[in-house]
Amino acid sequence: MINDIIVLGYGNLGYHLVDALSQLPDCTVTVYVRKLKSIDSKRVNSSSIRFVNHLEDLPPTAPLCFAAVKDDAIHKVCKSLPKNLLAQTSLIHCSGVLPANHLSVVSSRWALFYPLNSFSKDHSFSWEKVPVFIDGADPKKRKYLWQLAEQLSARPVENNDRDRAVLHLAAVMVNNFTNHLYQKAEELLSKHQIPFHYLIPLIKTTTSKLDYLSPAEAQTGPAARGDVETIRKHLGLIEDENLKSLYLELTHSINPDLKT
Amino acid sequence: MINDIIVLGYGNLGYHLVDALSQLPDCTVTVYVRKLKSIDSKRVNSSSIRFVNHLEDLPPTAPLCFAAVKDDAIHKVCKSLPKNLLAQTSLIHCSGVLPANHLSVVSSRWALFYPLNSFSKDHSFSWEKVPVFIDGADPKKRKYLWQLAEQLSARPVENNDRDRAVLHLAAVMVNNFTNHLYQKAEELLSKHQIPFHYLIPLIKTTTSKLDYLSPAEAQTGPAARGDVETIRKHLGLIEDENLKSLYLELTHSINPDLKT
Repeated sequence: MINDIIVLGYGNLGYHLVDALSQLPDCTVTVYVRKLKSIDSKRVNSSSIRFVNHLEDLPPTAPLCFAAVKDDAIHKVCKSLPKNLLAQTSLIHCSGVLPANHLSVVSSRWALFYPLNSFSKDHSFSWEKVPVFIDGADPKKRKYLWQLAEQLSARPVENNDRDRAVLHLAAVMVNNFTNHLYQKAEELLSKHQIPFHYLIPLIKTTTSKLDYLSPAEAQTGPAARGDVETIRKHLGLIEDENLKSLYLELTHSINPDLKT
Repeated sequence: MINDIIVLGYGNLGYHLVDALSQLPDCTVTVYVRKLKSIDSKRVNSSSIRFVNHLEDLPPTAPLCFAAVKDDAIHKVCKSLPKNLLAQTSLIHCSGVLPANHLSVVSSRWALFYPLNSFSKDHSFSWEKVPVFIDGADPKKRKYLWQLAEQLSARPVENNDRDRAVLHLAAVMVNNFTNHLYQKAEELLSKHQIPFHYLIPLIKTTTSKLDYLSPAEAQTGPAARGDVETIRKHLGLIEDENLKSLYLELTHSINPDLKT
């Protein structure tokens, strides 16, 4: 077992990675942050976590170093690591957009550990069944990262850059785009002083259907059943031109034969 | 307590309404279906439920009659009820689209009981916190329907036709439209032989955020942060012209200042 792990960055992903790794048996995590002051020590109640704000203070023999910083900072921070550390650690990035070997220009011991989800410091996170995409130059380290994902109860997956790029696009659709529809619905309701929370049980039902039906099988509603009368009523209620355009685009995408 | 209730129709909503009502203490539910043969008797394990396929066989003194049939059949089936039943029962429709007094042309004892959710016969349903919109000509029956919703652990709400129409539109956005995005994501992934279930933990995270953040606060992703490089990569991966158009429409709706 590897028991000395570095995590660079303590943002939303870094926070949950450190939290999970520090709970593994006999594992010590050293976290690099730019400002030690920014750490809320009340929230760190594990003796397995140590914070440093100088790259020189990182343990030089740690075999794994996760770069959990923003995509455009990964290369820069890794390049700045002390030479003795760089000479032995595996540099792991956690981005779904960058190629797996993004850090190969910095080190021949590059790897990828990309958990496909949305992380927030302010809320607990369950790693259960979360797909973690794994790649790396060294088969032994790949295997180790695979086991690490399993220890977190996540679902390790091996795939290629192209598939990961497609998954990232699909993730934007089911996360950012659907959240935007929630936002537009909230804007519409608030104009009529109607609370958004009325919709939450329905939203939960919609997503829980995915556990037993494909989205195509689960589709219902006026567009799917060609109910032009209801669609016209809805259009009559929409004042926001941008929402009208979205409504028509999605309605015609659901049912291309529909004449509104 | 009212203990003799009629439900017309045994579709997705009818099924769950009958299931819930038949579990209330001392309550007997008589269900009208067109074909008795269509009832799977193995699934009906309550002695409080009785099925009939002639309107004449409905109990003539039942004080409540729910019309849980399709919107365009509500008026017709209610008009066909036996005169002695019509003379004393309250006719309750369960549609979010029709005006509350839709049945006032059939009876002066009209009412509305509209649970805002998506029902499926094949799966269990939790009424907990589901908003149920209630209206009716008779204040006593309105009060009774309110208490009935509370007994089901639902959340009774009084509002007007206009607000209900707006809610129905918002429900289409957060249910049908988001489900369509799941479907488009599944189509995209299947072209690359990638399983859709990789996205399910992310989808659950996205919706669980609504318990503590507004959708506006929860928004992340390339469109929100103006990451044109990632957006261009995504567009390069999309072959389906319809999906490209949806992607651009939603991206510009999230960030109108973006130049793609």
